[in-house]
Amino acid sequence: MSKIASLRAHLKSLNLDGFILPHGDPYRSEYVAPAFARLEWLTGFSGSFGEAVILKDQAVLFVDGRYTIQAKKQAKEFSILHHGDNPPMEWIARQAGEGARIGYDPWLHTRAGLDRYKKALQEKNIALVALEKNPVDSLWQDRPLPPVSPLAPQDLKYAGQNSTEKRAMLATQIKKRGVKAVLLTQTDSIAWLLNMRGGDVEFNPIALCYALLHHDETVDLYIDPRKITPAIKKHFGNAVAVYPEADLPRNLAAFKGKKIQIDPQNAPAKIPDHLRQAGADIVLADDPCLLPKACKNKAEQKGMREAHIRDGVAYAKFLHWLADQDVSKLNEISTAEKLQRFRAESKLYRGDSFATICGFGANGAIVHYRAEAKSAHRLAKNNLLLLDSGAQYLDGTTDITRTFALGKPTTEQRDRFTRVLKGHIALARAQFPVSTSGSQLDSLARQYLWEAGLDYDHGTGHGVGAYLCVHEGPQRISKIPNRVALLPGMVISNEPGYYKAGAYGIRIENLVMVQNVKGKKGFLEFETLTLAPIDRNLIDAKMLTKAERDWLNAYHARVYRELHKKLDKKEQAWLKKSTAAI
Amino acid sequence: MSKIASLRAHLKSLNLDGFILPHGDPYRSEYVAPAFARLEWLTGFSGSFGEAVILKDQAVLFVDGRYTIQAKKQAKEFSILHHGDNPPMEWIARQAGEGARIGYDPWLHTRAGLDRYKKALQEKNIALVALEKNPVDSLWQDRPLPPVSPLAPQDLKYAGQNSTEKRAMLATQIKKRGVKAVLLTQTDSIAWLLNMRGGDVEFNPIALCYALLHHDETVDLYIDPRKITPAIKKHFGNAVAVYPEADLPRNLAAFKGKKIQIDPQNAPAKIPDHLRQAGADIVLADDPCLLPKACKNKAEQKGMREAHIRDGVAYAKFLHWLADQDVSKLNEISTAEKLQRFRAESKLYRGDSFATICGFGANGAIVHYRAEAKSAHRLAKNNLLLLDSGAQYLDGTTDITRTFALGKPTTEQRDRFTRVLKGHIALARAQFPVSTSGSQLDSLARQYLWEAGLDYDHGTGHGVGAYLCVHEGPQRISKIPNRVALLPGMVISNEPGYYKAGAYGIRIENLVMVQNVKGKKGFLEFETLTLAPIDRNLIDAKMLTKAERDWLNAYHARVYRELHKKLDKKEQAWLKKSTAAI
Repeated sequence: MSKIASLRAHLKSLNLDGFILPHGDPYRSEYVAPAFARLEWLTGFSGSFGEAVILKDQAVLFVDGRYTIQAKKQAKEFSILHHGDNPPMEWIARQAGEGARIGYDPWLHTRAGLDRYKKALQEKNIALVALEKNPVDSLWQDRPLPPVSPLAPQDLKYAGQNSTEKRAMLATQIKKRGVKAVLLTQTDSIAWLLNMRGGDVEFNPIALCYALLHHDETVDLYIDPRKITPAIKKHFGNAVAVYPEADLPRNLAAFKGKKIQIDPQNAPAKIPDHLRQAGADIVLADDPCLLPKACKNKAEQKGMREAHIRDGVAYAKFLHWLADQDVSKLNEISTAEKLQRFRAESKLYRGDSFATICGFGANGAIVHYRAEAKSAHRLAKNNLLLLDSGAQYLDGTTDITRTFALGKPTTEQRDRFTRVLKGHIALARAQFPVSTSGSQLDSLARQYLWEAGLDYDHGTGHGVGAYLCVHEGPQRISKIPNRVALLPGMVISNEPGYYKAGAYGIRIENLVMVQNVKGKKGFLEFETLTLAPIDRNLIDAKMLTKAERDWLNAYHARVYRELHKKLDKKEQAWLKKSTAAI
Repeated sequence: MSKIASLRAHLKSLNLDGFILPHGDPYRSEYVAPAFARLEWLTGFSGSFGEAVILKDQAVLFVDGRYTIQAKKQAKEFSILHHGDNPPMEWIARQAGEGARIGYDPWLHTRAGLDRYKKALQEKNIALVALEKNPVDSLWQDRPLPPVSPLAPQDLKYAGQNSTEKRAMLATQIKKRGVKAVLLTQTDSIAWLLNMRGGDVEFNPIALCYALLHHDETVDLYIDPRKITPAIKKHFGNAVAVYPEADLPRNLAAFKGKKIQIDPQNAPAKIPDHLRQAGADIVLADDPCLLPKACKNKAEQKGMREAHIRDGVAYAKFLHWLADQDVSKLNEISTAEKLQRFRAESKLYRGDSFATICGFGANGAIVHYRAEAKSAHRLAKNNLLLLDSGAQYLDGTTDITRTFALGKPTTEQRDRFTRVLKGHIALARAQFPVSTSGSQLDSLARQYLWEAGLDYDHGTGHGVGAYLCVHEGPQRISKIPNRVALLPGMVISNEPGYYKAGAYGIRIENLVMVQNVKGKKGFLEFETLTLAPIDRNLIDAKMLTKAERDWLNAYHARVYRELHKKLDKKEQAWLKKSTAAI
């Protein structure tokens, strides 16, 4: 029996007419551990965003534009629909019969997400049924076990503030609101609060867990106890009590009649269900760790700077190596691996911060491209190479994109690259009043592309953690309205691009850190952290204003100044040339 | 007995512990007719924003930052509090006793506004009581009658689309949603839909009324029948039935069990109260006239262009006159009146579009300054004059701000003016993809002030009607997030500024109209409508890029080209000089 048929038989035994299965785990991790790759098990689709709906007579996989082709290849037994054009809830409302019962796993949805579903479904009297157990788990024979990577304390020298102080600060806030405890459901918030790092998912040094921060500053950590090492036990001291995750419902029951805070953007729907059942007084508010985690303290700022110098040295060595190669003997994967090896030479390196995007020519125009071993493109001296990569170091996280001309670029490529660069510089040079959000700055990065009737279909900047997730909120620079003010210490990417489908892709990405402008009270600006040459062959200097040229030359001079001492003579000479003034 | 004492006695007779009285009328007009100036009658305060709360032992007037000084002068029997720092609802929650009953006039609040109140009050078990009659009306002996200005048809040559077509278009939309009728509660929407203009309030050519647009394309107009002239009766034909406003509740009762649409941003709370009582099925949605009204059709675009040429001629004549004056003999009011007289020479002139702001020196730094006869400042050759004014013509509405140096400007003034001008030009030259909102463009206008640690504390642009309100939505250019995409035909102001408190104010305002960019599919830009010289004495040409200088010179050349034929020789010579290339 096929997986779909087995699932349908199982759903029938549960008196259900259908089932919704989104990509994701109960922790809303960006990268999902194999144990939670249920969508891939069921459909074959391995992308990072998707949602399957299985009805009695239809099986549909909803994905977004990036994944339509991949989904069609991988999920052959499913019809593929576009998530935006065909929202799953509206599709269900049309396709499922009046009065149908559709099951869902309440650990994989937020209450807000379900409410949007319910609204669309109520007209057809379709019921959403929360299931105690995910039906896939009943069928998946060889389901991998959840990860149990050991926890490690994050050294105070990098964390900059001990957990006791962090907990005291947050407890003071919640006590003011009469709240007895906050349930933290975002794993990087818990890692930040407890100054601990884990290894349960790829690229993000976090542990899968939940945590209750009590108003008395103690924490209950709900986690597989096998992750607790002697070092972390000592680090926790008496302030952190460890429970298996299975204990969470019972302990939440103790909040009967008491105020407990959860973040509706993040908490799985099962959490408020438990709390309501327990008769708790639920307070909805943003995760209180978000802002202090986003605003790096002095030690974290220092760590981020040093990580970027280290990353810049590895990057310069890699570029020097690349400049010497017969590129026709390289492909997208071998090139990316070489860069990783340079980074791994550092003792503080702990892995990449995301899956490297190394796209040659037309592949560079696929924004979320990931080369596969069997299809990786060979490089050649006739197009652009787009390389988006980053690393996790004990003291900081990096994320850099450079675009290189292999061979002689076309006039169009130089024009587009220079427009992207002008936008990048406009953001890098921007000064703006406190309380400005990233959304307000987004058009500064796009204006020169717009002038030519061009644009790019992604955000301009995402927040970045300090040896935490390379994508973190709440700040971002994007067309989408966002009221989060940029604050000193926030790290964010500055990454405008341009993509010509079927031809080439361009992106220039540095990480920047928000700082007060000296001598201009109430104004902020960006300190650029990333240190690597920007390909001068792709710049049309005539298109730059004097201020832009000054910025570029000063940046390149700084790249040389900060990196050259860690390079050998040949590398130094190469870097000198690559950072010469234009 | 004082007014407050009388009001308290009356409230007592109604078994109330307090009363909330906001500025405003039942139509949410920007300018309030004398009959509805209840707040001014009660408090003495004549500003355009404020809210009084009368409790048994306290009388407080809440205003915003612009009005604190004025309110203290005018409303001597009231304590003055800042609306933002001290929200009235929270103040009432603290000050009124547990279980208090606070009255309000449900014609003067929206349901959404009241819900925010209720949230703050429910903790103290304070009840908000909707009153059948506004208590002020029971005490106000010589209350002026509501206005009954005659209605006039708006000529099709200016309106561009007849009312039948407009009604058919909207009826098709509402039928699709199964809605039986839309209750229109915004007076400029009704004026647009029925191609009619009125004169019930200052500056805005609208009539106070409500209208029901039925799915069969007919309209019930709720209005004082004395406003119905033979011409408008003929214009309406059979499609529009006229009822006195008092009939509205009875007619709404007919919607029992039927879908009726209202705009929650605009409908007085009394409307949904009536509808709920009637058992109607209320559909909440934006006023369907908003977008078609905002997107001017070809005839309206032509009218707006012609109105701006006419306004430009009057403005040029005024500036030529001013250049010849001994300014020390002028004051802020006599100067503004002279400009009005030049405008009034046009046969199509129907009045000003708002109260002229003519601020000399430090008065120019008061963003909402309005000179009073007894305190109007004399002009002198030692500071800047800021003049913000506009007119209503039968074919269009204008709104222009210019800032002039009387005498020699300081280096600082020229620097600030040039930064404002660079921001103005950045917006004027901007090209941007469809679906871009005004919020996304706002920082383009501010960036050069930000560079100097400066900013302005108001929006950058507001929508403008075609012989309708000079402030209309839904589009705007502002720091405040807004998802309304700019669409071809929308008219909006481009008005960055800079204000040095106690010293001088600068603002450069042109109206612009959104247009498709020729040859760049999917891209939009602004066509500048306003035609008047920008004071060259205030421009530091060295601070302009070549592109900015080119824009300014092309704009000035166009101003001369479009206006000079309507001017006499002397005026022409003056304009030639004032628009010479820099």
